[in-house]
Amino acid sequence: MKKIKIVLVALLLTQGLRAQNKIVVFQSDFGLKDGAVAAMKGVANTVSTELKLYDLTHEISPYNIWEGAFRLEQTVPYWPAGTVFVSVVDPGVGTSRKSVVLKTHKGHFIVTPDNGTLTLVAASEGIAEIREINEAVNRRQGSGKSYTFHGRDVYAYTAARLAAGAITFEQVGPVLPARVVTLPFQQAVREGQELKGNIPILDIQYGNVWTNIDASLLEPLKPKYGDVMKVTFYHQQQVVTTLEAPYSETFGAVPGGKPLAYLNSLMQLSFALNMGSLAEQYHIGSGSDWSVRVVLLPKRN
Amino acid sequence: MKKIKIVLVALLLTQGLRAQNKIVVFQSDFGLKDGAVAAMKGVANTVSTELKLYDLTHEISPYNIWEGAFRLEQTVPYWPAGTVFVSVVDPGVGTSRKSVVLKTHKGHFIVTPDNGTLTLVAASEGIAEIREINEAVNRRQGSGKSYTFHGRDVYAYTAARLAAGAITFEQVGPVLPARVVTLPFQQAVREGQELKGNIPILDIQYGNVWTNIDASLLEPLKPKYGDVMKVTFYHQQQVVTTLEAPYSETFGAVPGGKPLAYLNSLMQLSFALNMGSLAEQYHIGSGSDWSVRVVLLPKRN
Amino acid sequence: MKKIKIVLVALLLTQGLRAQNKIVVFQSDFGLKDGAVAAMKGVANTVSTELKLYDLTHEISPYNIWEGAFRLEQTVPYWPAGTVFVSVVDPGVGTSRKSVVLKTHKGHFIVTPDNGTLTLVAASEGIAEIREINEAVNRRQGSGKSYTFHGRDVYAYTAARLAAGAITFEQVGPVLPARVVTLPFQQAVREGQELKGNIPILDIQYGNVWTNIDASLLEPLKPKYGDVMKVTFYHQQQVVTTLEAPYSETFGAVPGGKPLAYLNSLMQLSFALNMGSLAEQYHIGSGSDWSVRVVLLPKRN
Repeated sequence: MKKIKIVLVALLLTQGLRAQNKIVVFQSDFGLKDGAVAAMKGVANTVSTELKLYDLTHEISPYNIWEGAFRLEQTVPYWPAGTVFVSVVDPGVGTSRKSVVLKTHKGHFIVTPDNGTLTLVAASEGIAEIREINEAVNRRQGSGKSYTFHGRDVYAYTAARLAAGAITFEQVGPVLPARVVTLPFQQAVREGQELKGNIPILDIQYGNVWTNIDASLLEPLKPKYGDVMKVTFYHQQQVVTTLEAPYSETFGAVPGGKPLAYLNSLMQLSFALNMGSLAEQYHIGSGSDWSVRVVLLPKRN
Repeated sequence: MKKIKIVLVALLLTQGLRAQNKIVVFQSDFGLKDGAVAAMKGVANTVSTELKLYDLTHEISPYNIWEGAFRLEQTVPYWPAGTVFVSVVDPGVGTSRKSVVLKTHKGHFIVTPDNGTLTLVAASEGIAEIREINEAVNRRQGSGKSYTFHGRDVYAYTAARLAAGAITFEQVGPVLPARVVTLPFQQAVREGQELKGNIPILDIQYGNVWTNIDASLLEPLKPKYGDVMKVTFYHQQQVVTTLEAPYSETFGAVPGGKPLAYLNSLMQLSFALNMGSLAEQYHIGSGSDWSVRVVLLPKRN
Repeated sequence: MKKIKIVLVALLLTQGLRAQNKIVVFQSDFGLKDGAVAAMKGVANTVSTELKLYDLTHEISPYNIWEGAFRLEQTVPYWPAGTVFVSVVDPGVGTSRKSVVLKTHKGHFIVTPDNGTLTLVAASEGIAEIREINEAVNRRQGSGKSYTFHGRDVYAYTAARLAAGAITFEQVGPVLPARVVTLPFQQAVREGQELKGNIPILDIQYGNVWTNIDASLLEPLKPKYGDVMKVTFYHQQQVVTTLEAPYSETFGAVPGGKPLAYLNSLMQLSFALNMGSLAEQYHIGSGSDWSVRVVLLPKRN
């Protein structure tokens, strides 16, 4: 009977452990045309075939750290606590940038080179602790003779071991000061009746232009649907174009091809053409050097 | 002993439940470059990390409902009963289109805006029951203050809860009349020795042209491999081009660059160039306004 | 008590079986825009919903067998023994090419048409045994009336059954002689102070040029970081361009836009522009008809 009980307890514990997260989500600028992503997932499966491996995106523009930072910010909050993210946008591979694991206050883990990739998510979720990966132990066996594919040999390997419970967060390596490398950009601010902000990214599939101006910042202006916003887009402080766009609940509120202002799925002020590409038509881009200025026009009676 | 038995029964039931489907398959026009797909999968994992999440495609041409309808038709039948599909091609988001879950006679579930997306699969698999999503309960907590990303907050969330058994099909919401919004197109018909049909889609990777003309409709003409078909392609009732193509068992049956007629993997009459792109060379497109007329030429002796 | 023990043993065995691999990795030239990949995964899930399905890539250039061969070589070694790969690059579908399953000496299984796809991986991992798929039994029920989508109806189906343990490797079909169809290419060789090799593939996301020249072949030349290599690129034996590139540990060792030589993640000699595309700027391609000649220049003092 005792043995049976022990077996049962063991089984139940196994069931319990199986209820854990064990999820790894991968992001990179590798694209999907070669075997790099599959090699990372192969290494993760060699650590444990019980892991669940997902993709954020692998279509980050090559070397574009800012874009990687934004994609993390956009998606990390929607995953359960305990999920481990791997982000490999690493123009400085082989230089002195540190390989780290960030644990956020919301319980997400992000494995990445600390090169600005953590700019936005560290600010929004908060830094619970950040550790430098000790490559002496946290590196795939057989790698490291010469050139190392860090995404595969260090980041995927460490993320998989962390997600599978093969190592604890403490075993990643030594604690670092609770700050990350950050990229500069126009913070979202309200100055009287005027809003300023950055264009962090385009909603590229549709050509919509997103800003970092939160709904909460917009609220004091008390815009109603139908009110017209005058928005000026800037690249490196130079005006690119100015448009008038009614604040709308739905795209269908304006005719096809006409501009509108709306709150996107992140509850941030955005601009679009209904059934068209605003970014393409007006040559608007995104990144740390793109910004907007928005004023609410007085109602016409 | 009793307790042990109960535990055992509980364990066995868990095993049994684990043997259930728990699969969600996602389709959209979001592309793979941003975080939209990953946000949907994050939400699904927040419902249950036991789900198995797959992709149909996220490269549906933006706003192309017809294409989404066809991709469902092309793939749903190959998945086991109980699989839950999410399809988000939603140009009318924010308008009065209904958010529904279709249960087909074959036991597949499709979560989608009812905007024509169900045109083909509802016809081929049959409507067992269709329910409107009650967004008062079937909506991600914390969403819905203002703009909602329906794919993430309603569709992925509801699909995950249905697949995980957190809600029953009945708990999706109220039953609707057993019909769906449909898009018009040229039905496949035989008129004597002549076949008419629609070009639902191109096999874009290779430039092959598919029709909706089933093998069974072709059979009364008794074509033999080597027999020549005369096919005319129409766009909005205007002739685009006419070709003669031998009915072939394999692409290799004609020289490189030459046209052939064949049955595709859906057992439907299709046209191609061996080792070339028929669609590109002759400017042939697809959709509800593209059609074909096919006649079998008399044998030359 | 006996029954309980039996149940426990059964449970433990189930746990044990669950610890098995059950992984299938898919590669094809289908692209991600249509439903072909999803249909293959649907069929696999119909065999068993316990399988874990991953992708190598589906962006192999249409009909490019060589590229498929290289991607397998690049990734198979990183996956655990017991993993089943499906590779469908099949310009000869419907001709006499054989459908086979290769078991390598390292315990990987590859399900594919034997058309050259196995050229590289059979050489590097070794052929433990190769079997021809017996389509009389190893073919999806309901398929095979006429045209068959082999990737779905034969390859995905057989791979899923093998991975799930529904059939043994022996049940795939009859043993074939232990050789595969191979594509010709310039083997990597050292002739005195000169190295010759093939350009198997481009690292397309970044435009880097990879060769098949292993670090071990380079070693007798004793290159030090900073030493300059003179490399000539050939297409069909014609010179395309000649460059001087310092042998570098990191991309950052040369200025932006300048060429360098380095060991890639497969420990093979490669060439790149730091922060640029070498392939694009100098019109360098890859495949069996592309090659390089490399000499180490004497040091300048």
